[in-house]
Amino acid sequence: MIRVRIRVAPAEYEVRVAPGLLARAGSLVRSVHRGAVAAVVTDRTVDRLYGAKVVRSLEAAGFEVSRSVLPAGERAKSLHRVETLWTRWARMGLGRDAIVVALGGGVVSDVAGFAAASYARGISWVAFPTTVIGQADAAIGGKVGVNLASGKNLIGAFHHPLAVFADIDTLRTLTPRAYRAGLAEIAKIGMIARPHLLPRLEGLARAGTRVPRPSLVAPLIRAAASAKAATVEADERDQGARLALNFGHTVGHALEAASGYRSHLHGEAVSIGMAAALRLSVLEVGLDPVDAMEAETLLARLGLPTRFRREPGEAFWKALARDKKRGRSGVRMVLCPAIGESKLFTLPALTTLRRVVRSLVRHTGGNP
Amino acid sequence: MIRVRIRVAPAEYEVRVAPGLLARAGSLVRSVHRGAVAAVVTDRTVDRLYGAKVVRSLEAAGFEVSRSVLPAGERAKSLHRVETLWTRWARMGLGRDAIVVALGGGVVSDVAGFAAASYARGISWVAFPTTVIGQADAAIGGKVGVNLASGKNLIGAFHHPLAVFADIDTLRTLTPRAYRAGLAEIAKIGMIARPHLLPRLEGLARAGTRVPRPSLVAPLIRAAASAKAATVEADERDQGARLALNFGHTVGHALEAASGYRSHLHGEAVSIGMAAALRLSVLEVGLDPVDAMEAETLLARLGLPTRFRREPGEAFWKALARDKKRGRSGVRMVLCPAIGESKLFTLPALTTLRRVVRSLVRHTGGNP
Repeated sequence: MIRVRIRVAPAEYEVRVAPGLLARAGSLVRSVHRGAVAAVVTDRTVDRLYGAKVVRSLEAAGFEVSRSVLPAGERAKSLHRVETLWTRWARMGLGRDAIVVALGGGVVSDVAGFAAASYARGISWVAFPTTVIGQADAAIGGKVGVNLASGKNLIGAFHHPLAVFADIDTLRTLTPRAYRAGLAEIAKIGMIARPHLLPRLEGLARAGTRVPRPSLVAPLIRAAASAKAATVEADERDQGARLALNFGHTVGHALEAASGYRSHLHGEAVSIGMAAALRLSVLEVGLDPVDAMEAETLLARLGLPTRFRREPGEAFWKALARDKKRGRSGVRMVLCPAIGESKLFTLPALTTLRRVVRSLVRHTGGNP
Repeated sequence: MIRVRIRVAPAEYEVRVAPGLLARAGSLVRSVHRGAVAAVVTDRTVDRLYGAKVVRSLEAAGFEVSRSVLPAGERAKSLHRVETLWTRWARMGLGRDAIVVALGGGVVSDVAGFAAASYARGISWVAFPTTVIGQADAAIGGKVGVNLASGKNLIGAFHHPLAVFADIDTLRTLTPRAYRAGLAEIAKIGMIARPHLLPRLEGLARAGTRVPRPSLVAPLIRAAASAKAATVEADERDQGARLALNFGHTVGHALEAASGYRSHLHGEAVSIGMAAALRLSVLEVGLDPVDAMEAETLLARLGLPTRFRREPGEAFWKALARDKKRGRSGVRMVLCPAIGESKLFTLPALTTLRRVVRSLVRHTGGNP
């Protein structure tokens, strides 16, 4: 009898949330990686704003730099784009001593991180998230991947970055819409795990959510990132506690998939998904209806959508049934039995969810 | 300052080398996996011989079974084939509770294992290797992946199977050529780590290498598999000891890539690569020339090629320069300072390797 025993050494990495990090990109990357080659992956929007600055800083720190620019938006999260990166890296002769530098939002870190995870069986990467969603959530925790036509994030890996450097100055260049979409993930963390974030988000809503003031947003990002880090530590492989982070995502993902990732930003779809999950939580796990209404109102006050534009069609329900957290006995969703808590719940049938979704279709809305 | 700490629990799995395992596939898979769905991946040749038997056994053990059949041969190790598997699994609604069953040689376990590694960020798999190379080497150690046009195994992951079940009865259906190609990997283990395997391979050569006798080969497979397991335990991520297993592979891979994986079986290419590495070892790291000649002769007596059919062209040297073990300072190769030992060596220039390769071109051959 032959046995193979695998022990993986523990890893540890830093998430830094601070101003002015992009200008120091070179020395920051150098502080975690000794190799000579840096492969920057970014998108068109971010490249125009910060590409040259980051490349300059990396070169000044002695890196040989290549830069690959993805189209902006969720549709870049495709196998095709990853293959293009792989082929380019292979032609350049990129070896295991190279580091991938992801510069951009959640889409960029998902694509760049997965490309790094599977190139030469895994090379290092580092994330410079430039959106609220990336800084507070997406760049932390090693979940990387791309979409298949058949479902969101279906192809991917767990591949942690060597470090996450969140330069909060980059938030100034976000569109109001992208900024608000990012707040949805902070609201999510508040609702299921850190209720003290909710009054602070109310404060932010009062200050206005058109132009982010980094000094106001940074503490919220830091708190959300820290909550995300704690959840990842407790459950790296997404089998228990970490599943709670999918609050709002079951319906949100189905909405995105059904619309071909065109009508909503990710955070907007999650906001609508949270509205649905809140109402379902009232009906199924005893969430106080007043708390549910307050939470839904907060989303609206942050300028986020909480209603379906129209009755979702077959594509939506099909995508929901394909959700990868699906158990054999039904769709599994994260619900919220009380603000600040979460519970994994298996819907025995879709009847109640259909009722909730109908109640959230614009013009026919109403409370549960 | 936020820190993320990742601790991965140690894993352990069993490699069983025995007759009659395919007929018990269902209960064997059931012994390591509780889920309900089994996705069999095999190739045309193996499917014809053993597909129905394995599916029947899995169904009898209560699995809901799907079967995907790859074309036979190295050219199936493509991203395109992996994508086809992913899409099919997604359409079937395969969830994280499914297990992938790789039934076949090294190509099948590489493709099926990588598909499992990246589907839904990693689902379980189990290997039933049906070739000498799969049983002694390829199915053990979690290295899975596919080729890009730009290089062999460039895309992949470390993803260990839950178990390896090597049914030695399947060796009876190997062609003599495939059987001999498999012996090359056993010879490799002998030359760099387990010298006692070499006289036993001599014995096998005397008994003839047209038709494998499982009872004669099984002990050699068990010894090689056990050596492979020990190397993997010492260095799962291929950064030290495990690199020694690449003996013969630098030149072998370049030869395969340059010929589009058409002219040589993997083991045949590795055999020619070992002949080159042995001669280089005499010139560069002091291997005794008589030992080198004996080792080269053993390969020939096993019916393996040890000569280039013609002078390798530009494609060969380009592929060599792209090898993913390449350091910044030159091509890194595993050499053999004494039979049973290995040493990682960086070629400062290709001059000596060019000379060795020329000495191995058929019709112009000769000793170093």
